[in-house]
Amino acid sequence: MKVAAAQTHPRFGQPEENRLITRRFCRRAAQQDVRLIVFPELCITGYNFSSKKALVRLAEPVPNGPTTQLWLNLAKAHRLIIVGGLAELDDKGQIFNSAVVVGPKGFLGCYRKLHLFGSEWELFSAGNQIPQVHSVLGFKFGAIVCFDWAFPELARILMLEGCEVLCHPSNLVLPLAQRVMIARSIENRLFTITANRVGTERDLQFTGRSQIISPSGDILVRGRSRRSQLLITEINPAEARNKNITPTNNLITDRRVKLYKRLIS
Amino acid sequence: MKVAAAQTHPRFGQPEENRLITRRFCRRAAQQDVRLIVFPELCITGYNFSSKKALVRLAEPVPNGPTTQLWLNLAKAHRLIIVGGLAELDDKGQIFNSAVVVGPKGFLGCYRKLHLFGSEWELFSAGNQIPQVHSVLGFKFGAIVCFDWAFPELARILMLEGCEVLCHPSNLVLPLAQRVMIARSIENRLFTITANRVGTERDLQFTGRSQIISPSGDILVRGRSRRSQLLITEINPAEARNKNITPTNNLITDRRVKLYKRLIS
Repeated sequence: MKVAAAQTHPRFGQPEENRLITRRFCRRAAQQDVRLIVFPELCITGYNFSSKKALVRLAEPVPNGPTTQLWLNLAKAHRLIIVGGLAELDDKGQIFNSAVVVGPKGFLGCYRKLHLFGSEWELFSAGNQIPQVHSVLGFKFGAIVCFDWAFPELARILMLEGCEVLCHPSNLVLPLAQRVMIARSIENRLFTITANRVGTERDLQFTGRSQIISPSGDILVRGRSRRSQLLITEINPAEARNKNITPTNNLITDRRVKLYKRLIS
Repeated sequence: MKVAAAQTHPRFGQPEENRLITRRFCRRAAQQDVRLIVFPELCITGYNFSSKKALVRLAEPVPNGPTTQLWLNLAKAHRLIIVGGLAELDDKGQIFNSAVVVGPKGFLGCYRKLHLFGSEWELFSAGNQIPQVHSVLGFKFGAIVCFDWAFPELARILMLEGCEVLCHPSNLVLPLAQRVMIARSIENRLFTITANRVGTERDLQFTGRSQIISPSGDILVRGRSRRSQLLITEINPAEARNKNITPTNNLITDRRVKLYKRLIS
């Protein structure tokens, strides 16, 4: 089964143009029989907003806003799962840094980023729910967003909930996440798909190097640092179903759960 | 402050000889002003025992056995902290895969491996306590043993307890831990010292490549895969005290603790 990381170069403050970019990438992916595609964080608005006022004009409701509606159409037309990041506006005027998840049969869910990064604290409200695990087209998958990479707790919880493909829309600026996501794959025996953007916005340079990692930590595909690219690879999600790292060691049953209480105190 | 990973080549079933090896490494380290040295897992007995009967003859009590007594003398004579792995025999005849911790002023503790690997299940009892964090000679440090690397929970707990230098006696045979320990350093902003052995015992080839990693994930020093080596580097533990990964992001206070309950259910 083919999956893709769409390493796009969003135009700051140009949602119409950025939606068209996602449409082009979905079509190209579908031509190559991709069934699951991941777009970067905030790939519709751009990232580096200096005020909430500027952002709120571009944020949109989910699932009734234009991006989710477009993605629903594309998912249906191309028999695709789409996971992508956008600025979500709720009915109380709060903005979330969200990952929308749609499939061929409709809207699946929306994860609101839990661990905000840098000046995101001034722009976004943080989510209050663990991401869901979805089971569609043979994939059991879930999403985390960008800086969530630094918190092993979140990927672990998704793995415990059955996640086999961890989708990771990102706007990375530090040179750390690519290495840590390899560990997330190994320690949870799951595929990780990091879709990072490229380009520069004011003082921020986004680092590209999107990657898809196997449950044994192999880099199945990795993008370049400055070029818009569609990265595609074939995966067998069943590889992530078996949590045995050796014949006698299982990453779930070997956990010493009763000794981990300090993690939540 | 200088720290060291002693990448030794233990002789299987030759505890006297292996103790002498640790003495030589401690002396060499002290000549270069090392204050903390880490030895591999089970560096006194060797690793690949085919029966508990063979192992029990070589296991020893802690702190009254010959290895801990030797290390206490060396620690005092050279003003060293020593963290090293051995087979511990308790007064009920149970054997633990333990990391002994001694300092210039005496015995500090003994951590019994929590996550046993492969056929260790037939030889050892698993520990039942989280490792302690010790504060000696300006280091705040703790130990995990080998396969504990696969459980992000354990390093996280040590970090929450104030650990700045995570000592990791190992007998690695998979090509995974070196990469994952870089993530442990980054996600917890602490130094990690992986002391892995070299050599072969029956079907097992130990992989060397001991390493010392900084809180930002830099490889400060890394050993070769087949050679006995003393790896030394200078570190400033204060670098690991500040858990800010950016000016506005702190790896402790950014945790969404209330949402992590699934980790212990």
